[in-house]
Amino acid sequence: MIKVYGSSNSGNCLKVKWVAERLAIPFEWIETNTTGQTRTPEFLKLNPAGQVPLIAFDDGRVLAQSNAIMLHLAEGSDLVPADAFARAKMFEWLFWEQYSHEPTIAVRIARLFYLKMKEEDLDPALKTKGEAALARMEHALRGSDWLVGETITLADIALVAYTRNARKGDFDLTPYPALVAWIARVEGALGLEKTA
Amino acid sequence: MIKVYGSSNSGNCLKVKWVAERLAIPFEWIETNTTGQTRTPEFLKLNPAGQVPLIAFDDGRVLAQSNAIMLHLAEGSDLVPADAFARAKMFEWLFWEQYSHEPTIAVRIARLFYLKMKEEDLDPALKTKGEAALARMEHALRGSDWLVGETITLADIALVAYTRNARKGDFDLTPYPALVAWIARVEGALGLEKTA
Repeated sequence: MIKVYGSSNSGNCLKVKWVAERLAIPFEWIETNTTGQTRTPEFLKLNPAGQVPLIAFDDGRVLAQSNAIMLHLAEGSDLVPADAFARAKMFEWLFWEQYSHEPTIAVRIARLFYLKMKEEDLDPALKTKGEAALARMEHALRGSDWLVGETITLADIALVAYTRNARKGDFDLTPYPALVAWIARVEGALGLEKTA
Repeated sequence: MIKVYGSSNSGNCLKVKWVAERLAIPFEWIETNTTGQTRTPEFLKLNPAGQVPLIAFDDGRVLAQSNAIMLHLAEGSDLVPADAFARAKMFEWLFWEQYSHEPTIAVRIARLFYLKMKEEDLDPALKTKGEAALARMEHALRGSDWLVGETITLADIALVAYTRNARKGDFDLTPYPALVAWIARVEGALGLEKTA
């Protein structure tokens, strides 16, 4: 059975869990915090980058990076568009998520909600860049139920992971009604507790 | 013909050029600097994220994100492994590149080489995180000619884009001999001028 090393506080890790559950792929969850357990010699042997999520197969092969893991688990499923250009747009969102969304929104959630840091001790750019990311999603979701095509894809799963907790990073979602409706839609599709 | 909006100073943009050239895909390069031309109302209509590279097809469809563009252009070619797990490892490198490599190494190159900023004005974490990224690649390339499998893939093309210019970001490559040999190998495979 696939082992999933992950932290239940991490949206990146939960992405993997949600995809495996939705596709009924059996897995064993190995709770691994990011405040030490990803830096042990044992874990660094599995993933020299010292990051979760990580999946390990019975034969010893391992795979890191949340979006790469999702893509591998979901290959050939309805979470990946069959059309080549739609698939490319899904990739566009996945790379944008890791470059422009996660480093601002997830970082503010971690620092304000989990580490209890104060707003005045944070780089103000995290707020402005995070708001720009939310505004870009709102723009895309006006008139569209899902980020790509007519059904849920990995793009929605990747982006919802931290967006649904953006309020914990002190982001006001009031200016983004289409985004808020989309959060509830994705949570419904994945059977998650409603955050709004 | 595909239009490629890109800056010749940007490794992310050059990735797209190299893949199109290698696969003999005709394209028109539209030089677009990142110091203003990606923020005009005309460009923001094409890409609300205000980033290059961007490709535009004759029918008006557009695609952003360097790695998503490469994947779309190279689909079905020998730059993408046919084996599912090898392909997943390629994705692992592509996402790692955008999350852990580009934001440190490319940012130092931009600030020190292009913007002529001084070392003491930069976040010291950019240096330590960049060195960790280079060390991780060195670790992977000891005993392996390419990042994934037995031949060049998009992982090598994505990672070489900024790694070959790491010295412009004042990174010393002496501790990474396997990395330096790999840079020359990828440059040779792509027909690029040797940087070392």
